[in-house]
Amino acid sequence: MNAIGVDVGGTKIAAGVVTPEGEVLKKVRRPTAHSPEHLLEGIVGAIEEVRDGFEVEGVCLGVPGTVLSAENKVIFSPNLHSIEDIPLKDELGKRTGLHVTVENDANAAAWGEFKFGAGSEVGHLIFITLGTGVGGGVITNGVLLRGAQGAGGELGHVTIQATGPRCNCGNHGCLEALASGTAIQRRAREVASEQPGSALGKLAADRKVLGEDVSELAWQGDEAAVSILEETGRWLGVGLAGFVNVFNPEIIAVGGGVAEAGDLILASVRREIYLRSRSPGRDLVQIREATLGAASGVLGAAALARGPSGEYVFG
Amino acid sequence: MNAIGVDVGGTKIAAGVVTPEGEVLKKVRRPTAHSPEHLLEGIVGAIEEVRDGFEVEGVCLGVPGTVLSAENKVIFSPNLHSIEDIPLKDELGKRTGLHVTVENDANAAAWGEFKFGAGSEVGHLIFITLGTGVGGGVITNGVLLRGAQGAGGELGHVTIQATGPRCNCGNHGCLEALASGTAIQRRAREVASEQPGSALGKLAADRKVLGEDVSELAWQGDEAAVSILEETGRWLGVGLAGFVNVFNPEIIAVGGGVAEAGDLILASVRREIYLRSRSPGRDLVQIREATLGAASGVLGAAALARGPSGEYVFG
Repeated sequence: MNAIGVDVGGTKIAAGVVTPEGEVLKKVRRPTAHSPEHLLEGIVGAIEEVRDGFEVEGVCLGVPGTVLSAENKVIFSPNLHSIEDIPLKDELGKRTGLHVTVENDANAAAWGEFKFGAGSEVGHLIFITLGTGVGGGVITNGVLLRGAQGAGGELGHVTIQATGPRCNCGNHGCLEALASGTAIQRRAREVASEQPGSALGKLAADRKVLGEDVSELAWQGDEAAVSILEETGRWLGVGLAGFVNVFNPEIIAVGGGVAEAGDLILASVRREIYLRSRSPGRDLVQIREATLGAASGVLGAAALARGPSGEYVFG
Repeated sequence: MNAIGVDVGGTKIAAGVVTPEGEVLKKVRRPTAHSPEHLLEGIVGAIEEVRDGFEVEGVCLGVPGTVLSAENKVIFSPNLHSIEDIPLKDELGKRTGLHVTVENDANAAAWGEFKFGAGSEVGHLIFITLGTGVGGGVITNGVLLRGAQGAGGELGHVTIQATGPRCNCGNHGCLEALASGTAIQRRAREVASEQPGSALGKLAADRKVLGEDVSELAWQGDEAAVSILEETGRWLGVGLAGFVNVFNPEIIAVGGGVAEAGDLILASVRREIYLRSRSPGRDLVQIREATLGAASGVLGAAALARGPSGEYVFG
């Protein structure tokens, strides 16, 4: 039976009807409204629009922020505060007549890569998404790691340098504080002022440097930009090396906008993991780019949808 | 049905016949021999001695070091190298006629605390053991985290300060390098030379200061010793805060010799976790002393023993 996955973001809502084989039969996209009632109407509208004409057994929403999946509740979503006040399962269930569950968006994306993407042939996968922040999800022995309240899997918020820069979460030296798009921008400002003659330095004199700029300049061969991505990769490798020792995964799939820099980052990631983690886990693990791109959110959410019995629709 | 748990250490082998309720019907202890054949004979002897007169369905060995539990194989055991060459499952199976499995000792101890000790009423437990090194194990949703090869759960080897001191594993800034008995001894030497007038400084002028000395002096009120345990607790808290965000556990149980310092360490651990981890996980988690002491090894191993069907003897 099919399921609907909904990827609720700060700027857009994407929804799709997905088959158990991961085929998207129909999808829609609409901008995110930010009052609770309009947001709710927007989600209902997206669900109703895609479901039209298809048999569907359940819906799952992937939502950014702190999600208590055990209670289908979003308790903190910095870019989507109004969602914190909506009893999603009950309201959406009432309005659509479907069984509704709620998950963290990165956990859903991890599940998508596990079912249909970079980790589809293994049982032990870590997914990490590098965007403005760092999110992630863990599948161990074929099961999504959620923890007691369903708030687990926050891979971006482990301390890798206790004396490091402050993180948005209030901690210092989180993986997110050192290896995110935000960290790249901060480092770009520093490097631009240290090396004003570099292509990066010249761009910075002109306008604000974005994460994408650093990747583009690095691909063009600008040493200053290359060094920033290598440093980012080293920090990411520090964090992932710990996850290799803790989770002994077969694959670590790296997704998100920053991952588009590809081997400019991943080469340092691999080297750092090799230096810092232990045999035999470090010899087993493969570091790969995620394969589903932005579709992982909808696909993974659909694959986490449950029917009225509480079982996953896709089994 | 009963099972036998064997805790194989660098200096002694402990074995016990355990009931599914965690009662130890009989136990033995003998010194560890270090040639492969004598070591094997010692383990067989311990098993035969305890099993005498009891019905037993399986045996599990908890062994320190890197254990591929998926293959019942010890590939690296720094204090017990000879065990690396023994095909434990086959040899012990042949000599005892019992079904034999092999697990990492800290994972076994974690399972013991989960089944019979500090975590017996929850489904999500982290166990950490502070001795010369730092070991640990994770139970999430009632399942022991092993990873693809069974080498997972190495909680002592996550980087919490990338620029920190070198760890025995070759990495820099591991939790073990900053919050183990070894780290306490190193810090004690530094503090003793900075504060020669402290009780710690005076002891150090006399003889080598051990981890136990630091705890004892701290209980007697020596500020220098207290500061070392507080610092150890802070570093431990840095690591555990990350585990709170990743695993969202209900309980973190702290065991091992260093944990006998109790609140002299755990108070700083709790404060640091509160500062560094996120709601709601940080509000849920309880940091407790482990309750089984040295018995967790035998109890946990017994509870991980499997019968000929491959199922846990204790279900």
